[in-house]
Amino acid sequence: MDMQRKTDDLQPLVAPRSVAIVGLSTKAGSAGLVVLRNLLEAGYDGDVHLVGRSGGSVDGRTLVTSVADLPVGVDLAILLVPSDVVLETVQACVARGVRAAVCFASGFAEMGEAGRDRQQEIADTARAGGMRLLGPNTIGFFNNVDGFYVAMVELVLPPRLRPDDGPAVAVVAQSGGIGIHVSASLQARGVPVSYVLATGNEAQLGLAEVLRFLATDTATAAVVVYAEQIRAVPQVLSALADLQSAGKGVVLLHPGRSELAQAASQSHTGALAGNHAAMRLAVERAGVLVVDSLEEAIDLGQLLLRFPQAPEGGLGLITASGALCGIALDYLEPLGLAMPPMSAEQVEALREHLPVYTPPRNPLDLGTLIGPRPDLIARGVKAHQDDPAIGSLLVSLPMPSPEIAPVWLESHLEGMQGRSKPAIFVMQNEDVPLPPAMLERAARSGTVLMRSPERALRALARFARHGRLQAERRAAPAAALLATAVAALPLQAPGTLPEWQGKAWLRAAGLATPQGDLATSVEEAVAVAQRIGYPVVLKAQAARLAHKTEAGGVLLGIQDEAQLRHGWQRLHDNIRQHDASLVLDGVLVEAMGARGLELVIGAVRDPQWGPVLMVGLGGIWVEALGDVQLLSADLPLAGIEARLRSLKGAKLLDGFRGAPPVDLPAVAQAVATVGALMLARPDIEEIDINPLVAYGTGGGVLALDALVVVK
Amino acid sequence: MDMQRKTDDLQPLVAPRSVAIVGLSTKAGSAGLVVLRNLLEAGYDGDVHLVGRSGGSVDGRTLVTSVADLPVGVDLAILLVPSDVVLETVQACVARGVRAAVCFASGFAEMGEAGRDRQQEIADTARAGGMRLLGPNTIGFFNNVDGFYVAMVELVLPPRLRPDDGPAVAVVAQSGGIGIHVSASLQARGVPVSYVLATGNEAQLGLAEVLRFLATDTATAAVVVYAEQIRAVPQVLSALADLQSAGKGVVLLHPGRSELAQAASQSHTGALAGNHAAMRLAVERAGVLVVDSLEEAIDLGQLLLRFPQAPEGGLGLITASGALCGIALDYLEPLGLAMPPMSAEQVEALREHLPVYTPPRNPLDLGTLIGPRPDLIARGVKAHQDDPAIGSLLVSLPMPSPEIAPVWLESHLEGMQGRSKPAIFVMQNEDVPLPPAMLERAARSGTVLMRSPERALRALARFARHGRLQAERRAAPAAALLATAVAALPLQAPGTLPEWQGKAWLRAAGLATPQGDLATSVEEAVAVAQRIGYPVVLKAQAARLAHKTEAGGVLLGIQDEAQLRHGWQRLHDNIRQHDASLVLDGVLVEAMGARGLELVIGAVRDPQWGPVLMVGLGGIWVEALGDVQLLSADLPLAGIEARLRSLKGAKLLDGFRGAPPVDLPAVAQAVATVGALMLARPDIEEIDINPLVAYGTGGGVLALDALVVVK
Repeated sequence: MDMQRKTDDLQPLVAPRSVAIVGLSTKAGSAGLVVLRNLLEAGYDGDVHLVGRSGGSVDGRTLVTSVADLPVGVDLAILLVPSDVVLETVQACVARGVRAAVCFASGFAEMGEAGRDRQQEIADTARAGGMRLLGPNTIGFFNNVDGFYVAMVELVLPPRLRPDDGPAVAVVAQSGGIGIHVSASLQARGVPVSYVLATGNEAQLGLAEVLRFLATDTATAAVVVYAEQIRAVPQVLSALADLQSAGKGVVLLHPGRSELAQAASQSHTGALAGNHAAMRLAVERAGVLVVDSLEEAIDLGQLLLRFPQAPEGGLGLITASGALCGIALDYLEPLGLAMPPMSAEQVEALREHLPVYTPPRNPLDLGTLIGPRPDLIARGVKAHQDDPAIGSLLVSLPMPSPEIAPVWLESHLEGMQGRSKPAIFVMQNEDVPLPPAMLERAARSGTVLMRSPERALRALARFARHGRLQAERRAAPAAALLATAVAALPLQAPGTLPEWQGKAWLRAAGLATPQGDLATSVEEAVAVAQRIGYPVVLKAQAARLAHKTEAGGVLLGIQDEAQLRHGWQRLHDNIRQHDASLVLDGVLVEAMGARGLELVIGAVRDPQWGPVLMVGLGGIWVEALGDVQLLSADLPLAGIEARLRSLKGAKLLDGFRGAPPVDLPAVAQAVATVGALMLARPDIEEIDINPLVAYGTGGGVLALDALVVVK
Repeated sequence: MDMQRKTDDLQPLVAPRSVAIVGLSTKAGSAGLVVLRNLLEAGYDGDVHLVGRSGGSVDGRTLVTSVADLPVGVDLAILLVPSDVVLETVQACVARGVRAAVCFASGFAEMGEAGRDRQQEIADTARAGGMRLLGPNTIGFFNNVDGFYVAMVELVLPPRLRPDDGPAVAVVAQSGGIGIHVSASLQARGVPVSYVLATGNEAQLGLAEVLRFLATDTATAAVVVYAEQIRAVPQVLSALADLQSAGKGVVLLHPGRSELAQAASQSHTGALAGNHAAMRLAVERAGVLVVDSLEEAIDLGQLLLRFPQAPEGGLGLITASGALCGIALDYLEPLGLAMPPMSAEQVEALREHLPVYTPPRNPLDLGTLIGPRPDLIARGVKAHQDDPAIGSLLVSLPMPSPEIAPVWLESHLEGMQGRSKPAIFVMQNEDVPLPPAMLERAARSGTVLMRSPERALRALARFARHGRLQAERRAAPAAALLATAVAALPLQAPGTLPEWQGKAWLRAAGLATPQGDLATSVEEAVAVAQRIGYPVVLKAQAARLAHKTEAGGVLLGIQDEAQLRHGWQRLHDNIRQHDASLVLDGVLVEAMGARGLELVIGAVRDPQWGPVLMVGLGGIWVEALGDVQLLSADLPLAGIEARLRSLKGAKLLDGFRGAPPVDLPAVAQAVATVGALMLARPDIEEIDINPLVAYGTGGGVLALDALVVVK
């Protein structure tokens, strides 16, 4: 075993020099014997110790009856003991200086409170003793790099990495079943897999430690992760950063979207950002490619391994059927992937090779010409790969005879030579088997070979979305625009700030609010109104007054001093009637905002994942339609504008029904400001600007109402 | 060849007793020789005649040099001649009493006007001569029933139907490539395919004739159609009705959705119903299952063959992984397929067979129990199949060893015994090959076996949608509610009716409009207002006055007689200023409608497919969001209500922001009335009710403005 390759401290776990199987029964078919056989069949050549209460021997290997009888400093203990003796076994291992352990037993945190406590005790014991613990409730792991397999079920051992396999995908899964599904599917496609690591209940070792290990592992170039719950968030984000620095792509499948969908349908702004959405934003920010299905987990794992650079630009398509072009166009539209026209230069380059009845364009339909002229595949691939408008390429051809199919693949490979934009080669007529030699050739050459054009389109659309997100993040961040002074501004804590305070605070951060001031007497109110000009609005102010409109505490459209004096009285009467004990801070006197397009900006702080922003169109758009976009707090301005344009009602931004187009940069700037505030001030729990009124181009925005909640 | 089986007149084409290959060259590798070899290799035993200008012989068969030298009454002529001599060859064939012909040549309608004319001439010649013509521009056809293949390319001949294959799928395609893709994929799954018929340019024989033939063909039980353009619409609809009567399901893939999407984004109501949408509504009404991808065309073809009864009810799921349950739940939500809880009876039936830690429920997660207890698959399948809430079933299991996999399939089959709800058995870890004997067993037993759980979910969601559409159509139609008198009501034709006439007409059909009447003098107007009560609205009326609001021809909120008299004058002044030459029919005096929820009902008549209805929420909902539902004119009320509930802004119907829930039955009734009008009166081109104001439960609706266009 190559000792130099492992630089992280998971080495005693995944590639141990010595192993002890603890809780082994010599009875035929016992779990321990299965584990032992899996180990030995794969050619494990380190020391193997066996521990079993009843003693005995297996194939000449004598069992010791207690962990205490093991030599000191065994690398890995594989624990087959039942859940009720796991703790004492872990203690015994620690006492003998065992460096790592795998615990299969179930019956811990997944069974409720008591199990959680016992699990914590085990974790604490291991940690205190400096022992690495995988599990409990894991199915073990496959290390295809060294051919070391820890598994309690009889296995068809997955193929070990060959020296010429090149970089591989690692699969990390909280569900062993999903891990095996993904890795078996990848390997069946000829994609090398370095490890399958099932982290189980993650008492001690979790995603963070495993990802950190993979970041430095030289065999692994991409990682597919299946997670149902991400614990130790800062550590996981740090490990993801390590992976990104190392240029290793990560694909994540994390169920729970449907909870998000439920949350999104609720009308309360704060509820719009479910935990799943916050997780998604944070990991996408960390460069992770989030997928929504097992199909995508497999396909994008393979694509990321073969094409580490995510696509930027539209799709190039090469077919032998006009019909498929039509089907693809229909299919792409809802996926949001464009098929740009071929650039003039490439049209010229291709034209001389094509007969007049085959126009050089995208999609490129070779028709029946593909029979006599398979070389045109290579020419088409080159044209698309060299076209700056093209980000990724699909070559989708009908299955010819088994003799011809490999010729077409070779032509595709010739076109790809020295070119690196993501490409999928689809040999249609799925379910019709391909010649094994062709599959081998595809695998060896790193070709992503699929059978269903639609599946390939889904995968490329997902990859393109990843490319767009990455490009957005590369733009200059807007956060720097925020005056650093804001970080020092005092806030009355905790609870909801009265509107006048919240607005003053947002104004200091650079957000436009209506002109106005707090007045504590009618004379002050008159003075403010005189200064800012009529018409004005009166708004009763008190931290305790949550629903001021319902309390009669808001009066609109006050035209002159007489109305103002009369209104002042009416407002105070209303408030007294509403709650005689309420003492107002005063009354906010503000200029009436002109009409414009109403939007909403929200920000909440997820306890695990940090701030999440929300933008949407106001009124029924957000309430009845849930038409909002969620974004991370430091998204650059161009990204914010793109998200605004992704709203279902985005047409309204362009000047609907004779209105002028909205001042989109100003809206984006307001969103960026709220994001910067959430980042600069961890003491802010929530910001809700509803409505933010946007005016025509150059007209800016105005936060008509604002809610700031302090921790 | 079985002469009795064919009852339609396509027999000379698809199963001829004698064949002539016309335009044969004896040069090695010629297209004619390929056609001949394909024919003979499949064991064709009828007479074969060869026609080639240069004469000669092939394998002892002497060529005649002219069609005129053929014996009279050959069943099928296969025409290999170039496009410029097709016409004279067809003429010669007709003269010799040839009963059917296939024409491969391209260069006709697909090349523009001149080609279209030549194609028409050929079709007319064949028709006049009583000769059936397939093509031109076809790749030919495969008749797997009789083993008769007409194809110009070297083929791996598709497998011929075996006597014990049972019912088969026929594939009909305007693109030969797509036809072969679908049929090869089905056959690779062990699904028997009866025919692949490529109809090409459809000069004479088209979809209608082919579908009519398949309706009576005893080998065919389901049909997959790929069409890019449906010609001869009434004939196709009639053939689809024949297929439905025969209990044969039809799957259709027809590209062009994205055009619809473009149309839907336009604000003009009339443009919302693109031709593609009208086609889709009409064929779905005829029982066709419309799909949106090649994957679905294959999957639903197989499902319809195996399970002719479309599902009604939610999804039952059996897995061995809790993780997969979560993934499936996420995946199903956007597909609109529910996973209902297991009914109490089935819970009880299952409980005794399961250990306490495996709860009997939907989804049923067998976990690791599946290893020792594969019999539980059968029990789970029975429980779901016998559960009235369940419409279809997915069994998705991780691939075990190749020895165990068939055991699991058998257990599934035992559960399915005597049960008929659509079910898919997924053996996960796709791309890992399955034992051939297992594939054979799945095919022979009619099991729909797939490898990707998500693909299976997509297919079942599509099938469930088909089930819902079919159930909707089975409800009692609403059209009968329309007074038959409406059919006789006179209409001023042609052009747009002035509002007062259109409304009078709609009112006679049973649609509520505001109280009011046409007044031709101010005294009449005063009398009308007195009768209906103030406030009233004045609306100038003339067929030529299309935009009456812009012309100042609409005055709202007239409170009393003085305002009315003043308004009358102002309105006429406005109109005179707008267009001095305009003569008004009079002024419509109407009661002001109370506020309510604004909706839109539209109806247009597609020249090919007939009337299409549109409903949507009014104002920006329809204009900025394109939030409309399209429906056929005779959809029963329950179906209309379901579509209203499918609007994106459907929350508004339930009484949004304190408003009462809308009188949905009244809205549906209004839609049904418009539909019935379109059906009863083919002279109506378009109806546009905008807005239709809907009031709270029991409050009915009111058509505030209406536009009726007469042919």
